[in-house]
Amino acid sequence: MTDRELFVSMAITAWEAQNARINKLLTELSDDQLCAPTAPGRNAGHYLLGHLAAVNDGMLTLFGFGDKLYPELAKIFLANPENSDLTKPSITEVKYYWHEITHRLAKFVHENSVDDWFTKHTAVSDEDFAKEPHRNKLNVLLSRTTHQAYHHGQMIYLAGKNE
Amino acid sequence: MTDRELFVSMAITAWEAQNARINKLLTELSDDQLCAPTAPGRNAGHYLLGHLAAVNDGMLTLFGFGDKLYPELAKIFLANPENSDLTKPSITEVKYYWHEITHRLAKFVHENSVDDWFTKHTAVSDEDFAKEPHRNKLNVLLSRTTHQAYHHGQMIYLAGKNE
Repeated sequence: MTDRELFVSMAITAWEAQNARINKLLTELSDDQLCAPTAPGRNAGHYLLGHLAAVNDGMLTLFGFGDKLYPELAKIFLANPENSDLTKPSITEVKYYWHEITHRLAKFVHENSVDDWFTKHTAVSDEDFAKEPHRNKLNVLLSRTTHQAYHHGQMIYLAGKNE
Repeated sequence: MTDRELFVSMAITAWEAQNARINKLLTELSDDQLCAPTAPGRNAGHYLLGHLAAVNDGMLTLFGFGDKLYPELAKIFLANPENSDLTKPSITEVKYYWHEITHRLAKFVHENSVDDWFTKHTAVSDEDFAKEPHRNKLNVLLSRTTHQAYHHGQMIYLAGKNE
């Protein structure tokens, strides 16, 4: 196994483990639980799941895997807070979007070549990338793993767990 | 820059950013805020900070950097839940321990050689490591980064923020 293969497998394993944690939590929560605030005055699971779905949808384009599946999510769940007056998709829809996006992303992540992970993502210029080679696709995967863990720590509160 | 150097710098940057986020939060929270539950019935910031300090202390030994600075923290903040009847150090002490441990760990992380990150950590056998080369020190750093982000997502609720 080359160094590159090893790093890519480490980063993908961490990413997949994080997604699996969210999916496990979704099997444990009722829709009512998901729609509750994670803490008084804090985002509901509904909003956070939409937020994570929108972030993952953006990864499809950042990685050059294709267009977003549900581009309307970004305005609702990324650009605006939960208390905006935008109409949100139902929890059933958000769960559906999450699974569709995450499934599609997982397929591309799995099939992507080792060398492609070290190429620049679509939001960095050739010029900047030449100076900052860490701004590659694999680094985005690492930072999205951390981001998802951050919100997972909040969503776990919906399951009545103190972890 | 070699692949190894690049990947190590990516992982260390992510780790340091995560520690910086916790440190920033600590500058924003009063001791009273830190001692409050992150949500009703959930761990207080006090306990979570002790938990993160104890985890980081364990990394010193996992990485072979030396002995734990405060080995007594593990029993209180890792092996037992917040509502155990163990006497906990004060919030002032926990903050002190956190800073001492994290500062020491950061020094070693910074000085560690690139190749050493790809050697096995002390909790895996030579035999297992030969079969599972991803069980190296850098992988521990990645997983601890995710773990810290998870609890950071909870601790941010103490700052009256909905992020």
